[in-house]
Formats: sequence, structure tokens, C-alpha cells
Amino acid sequence: MSDRDRKQRFQRGPDKGRDGPGGQNRDKSRDQGRDHGRRPPRRGRESGGDGPAILYGWHTVTMALANPQRVIRKLILTENAARRLAEEKIDTRVAPVLVRPDEIDRRLGPDAVHQGLLAEVEPLESPDLDTLSQDGIVLVLDQITDPHNVGAILRSAAAFAVKAIITTARHSPEATGVLAKSASGALELVPMITVPNLARAVNELNDLGFMTVGLDSEGSENISAIPLQQPLALVLGAEGSGLRRLTRETCSVVARLDMPGEIKSLNVSNAAVLALYVGASKLGLMG
Amino acid sequence: MSDRDRKQRFQRGPDKGRDGPGGQNRDKSRDQGRDHGRRPPRRGRESGGDGPAILYGWHTVTMALANPQRVIRKLILTENAARRLAEEKIDTRVAPVLVRPDEIDRRLGPDAVHQGLLAEVEPLESPDLDTLSQDGIVLVLDQITDPHNVGAILRSAAAFAVKAIITTARHSPEATGVLAKSASGALELVPMITVPNLARAVNELNDLGFMTVGLDSEGSENISAIPLQQPLALVLGAEGSGLRRLTRETCSVVARLDMPGEIKSLNVSNAAVLALYVGASKLGLMG
Repeated sequence: MSDRDRKQRFQRGPDKGRDGPGGQNRDKSRDQGRDHGRRPPRRGRESGGDGPAILYGWHTVTMALANPQRVIRKLILTENAARRLAEEKIDTRVAPVLVRPDEIDRRLGPDAVHQGLLAEVEPLESPDLDTLSQDGIVLVLDQITDPHNVGAILRSAAAFAVKAIITTARHSPEATGVLAKSASGALELVPMITVPNLARAVNELNDLGFMTVGLDSEGSENISAIPLQQPLALVLGAEGSGLRRLTRETCSVVARLDMPGEIKSLNVSNAAVLALYVGASKLGLMG
Repeated sequence: MSDRDRKQRFQRGPDKGRDGPGGQNRDKSRDQGRDHGRRPPRRGRESGGDGPAILYGWHTVTMALANPQRVIRKLILTENAARRLAEEKIDTRVAPVLVRPDEIDRRLGPDAVHQGLLAEVEPLESPDLDTLSQDGIVLVLDQITDPHNVGAILRSAAAFAVKAIITTARHSPEATGVLAKSASGALELVPMITVPNLARAVNELNDLGFMTVGLDSEGSENISAIPLQQPLALVLGAEGSGLRRLTRETCSVVARLDMPGEIKSLNVSNAAVLALYVGASKLGLMG
């Protein structure tokens, strides 16, 4: 069964090389307090540096309000949402703008379940690869750009205590909203590291001592049968196209997940959560 | 963290009780040949009996063409798609109607990745619960109605050789198209059984000898720690609301899946694939 029909679903993420946004101001310290604001934090990664990102929905916005690292530019609420925040004693941090629900509808489109909350926020600072801890799991996404899928993966990553997600994808402010909604608050929990070149990032992970395991239905090893070690990087490709050749060649090992049924490939967020479960179980991280 | 904000994403599936469509003409034989057409097959379940379902996309339509049980009413193709079918020697079964791509766009909306193929088809016959085989796994979906999620679950079900999916949800012809596209051909592989009352269906599974395991973050047991047995029914609830009380009370056991991270709930299709993996692994079905 050919997978090539699904390629079209995934837009190719921009790969702007060294000239990509956010390439300067590499601030290796995540502790903004100690810097006294002298070095500008490395922002703009979530939304390609095109100004503030848009977050909406109860979970997404309240998690952002609860995250001291998240800069809130503007908070737009319906009266109902404002009342619910007050009832639950949630600090809005900025003075909210009260609007009618249809004003948020108009801004987000009719399909967005915003629940009366919309926040304009600064993207979070993106850590550098060499600040990653030397234990646990990171996820590397090779050209997985659909915001629903990336959001679901982010949510699973938070459920499995993943240390970071590394990707080349930059999302528009609108796509960031969809991604954040699908992530259900996980955008505040799992650092997203956007890199200009994925194979170079996997190489850097190798140099930093990570075991880099590419997941691919054509992989030579069954992931259940290989010994895994921390720190572990699980590298996932887009549905259809899979891992790019250069990404695959840079991984320590390329593994497949054997399944007993007639269909051999999964939705990419389903594949990601299985890889996380197998990885976390084999590493003894399931608690 | 409350999940209640996500309830709105899931429409409550109609629960029409004994008067629901398809309640008559219960044909327990799936072998239409032997019936010589005397008893009308039990159709209309995929799309609520509202006439033909719409399938689009390369995988979805070619899998339907390859399924002898699938009745094709009309096949609409672009010239490119017709050429590709001819190249791959795929029997179109009915004379295709050739159109320009934008005619299919106009029918499906701009977001549907149809790849030049649209088929109007009859819904597949739905088997009865008591024809299910006495081994393997079935999935029971309690008010999971989002067609993207149901489609992804169907695809994972096909990957894990699930025997059937049992649900109360009936989808409109349009939603069936989205579901089938997300399922990537799996709609032809995994029987969908639509029942009027889910708790009654779980009860029937209990009577048929199934171990019925409800999955719920509040479950009293960790699914990794309980002995599972075949035939196994894994019962999943909607995100947010979870299993309904009556469904939960009818299951043999309600189990949770422990995860080490800060977020304790997953996208429902991600939860489904994990449950399938754990179930299939523990039952020795991973091949």
C-alpha cells in the first residue's frame, strides 16, 4: 500500500538555513532573572518571529496565564469567561478586554472552540540543544507541520515528561493557535526548539551523547528488540514521506514498530505516542 | 486540571434507542451470496441510513474499489486520477465520470485533499455483536464522534488487527468522507458496528464472554498491572467527559494508564492506540 497520497497533507516546513529567524541572540541561559534583561531572550521561535502568537480556549489560555515565562500582551474575554476566571481565582495578569463571543468568533473563524478566551502572547524562549539535560527523552520532528498533529504530539510529550521537542517547523500565528489548542496547555510545559537544519541538530545530539533513534516503517530493527539508553532522542518523520534521507543517515539507529494488522502505518501523532510509550517503558521512566 | 473545556469539541452522538435506523432487517449472515438477496442486507449504518456515503482521496477510494463488499454507486475522477488508476491497473468497477479538479473542490470544500477521486458508495453492512469471533480485540467508542479522531482510531485498529469497532455514532455523508480519509483505507478493513445503546452492547459483550475493560484516567487499576484475556473489549470515552456512568458500571473493570508527565490525558486517538498496544502486547498478539 503506497503512502504517497498523504504527502500533500503536510506542508513542507521552511528550512531557511542559517539566515532563519531567531538565528541571533543565542542566549544559553534560560534564567531571565539573572540576566537582568541585558541579553534579549531568544523569542519568536513558535511563530517564526512574526509578532505575537494567538492562544485561545480555556486550557490553553489558563495554562499560559499560569506560566511565569509567558509574556501576555493582551487578554480578550467574554463576560462569561471573565466570571469563570474570577470564580476559579485565576490571575489574569493584564487587564482583560471584554467583548461579545461573536467578536472572538470573527477573529478566529467559526470552527475554533475558544470558550470566550483569546490571548495575544509572546512566543516562549527557545533553549539551545546543549542546555538539554542528559537524561530522559526528547522528540525530533522531521517535517511534521500539521498543527493538529504537532499539538497532539506536544500533549503526549507532556504526558510522558519529554524534555523538549526539536523541529524545523515555524508556524504562523494562526497555526500556533490551532497547535496550542490541540496541545491543551502542553505548549507551556514542553520546550519547543526550532532549528534551521534538522540533520545538523541530530548530529549535535549525537555529539552531546544522545542515542538518536529514527522511527520508520522500513527500519532495520524492531524498536521493541533494541536496547535503548538515556538521553534518548526519538526522531519521527511525516506520514507518507517518512524520514528524509539525510535525517535517517544521521540517526544512531533506524527502528520500526511491528504491528500485527493489515495497515502498517499510523497517524503520525499515534505513532509518536507509541514510540514514547515504548521508549519510556524500556528506559524505566513510566514511574 | 479540568478537562471540561474540551467537551464542546465532541458532539453528542444521537442515541435513538430501539427506533434508530437500521433496527430492522437484522441479517446475522454476512454472506450475501447465500441469501440470494431475499433478506435485505443491514446497510446505512456508516451514514445513518441517509443515502450513499462520500469517499475521497487515493487510499480511501482505491481501498473501496478493492473491497468486493463495497457497492460503488458513482466514481468521479480527474483525468490525472483516471490515468493513475489505469497505470496501476486498478479496476474502477463502474464507468467513471471525468471532471475538472475544481468540480470536486466545489463539492468537498477547499480543505479536502481528494487527489482527484470521489466515490459515492453504499455504507458497508454492519455485523451483529454475536457474530464476533471469540478471540482478539474489539474497540468500543462511547460518544467519540469527531470524524478525524474516529478515522485515526479506525486506522490504528486496522494496524492492530482489531476485529470490530462498536459505536453509537452515526455520521453524516460529509463526516463519513472526513472519517474515511483520516482512516486511510481502514474503513474497508475494520467492521463498524453501530448500536442504539452502548451500555446494552457492553452487557451483551459480557454475556458473550468478552472481558470488557473501560479506560479512564480515574480507573481503579493500572492497565499494565491487570491480567487481560481474549476476547477483549477496550471501551474508550470522549475526551473531557470520559466514560458515561452507565458504560463504566457495565464494564468488567475500569483501568487507567499511568503516565509520568504533568498532563494526564491524551488526545483520544492517542489514548486508543496506547490501549491497543498494551492490550495486544499483553495478549501476545503483536506477532
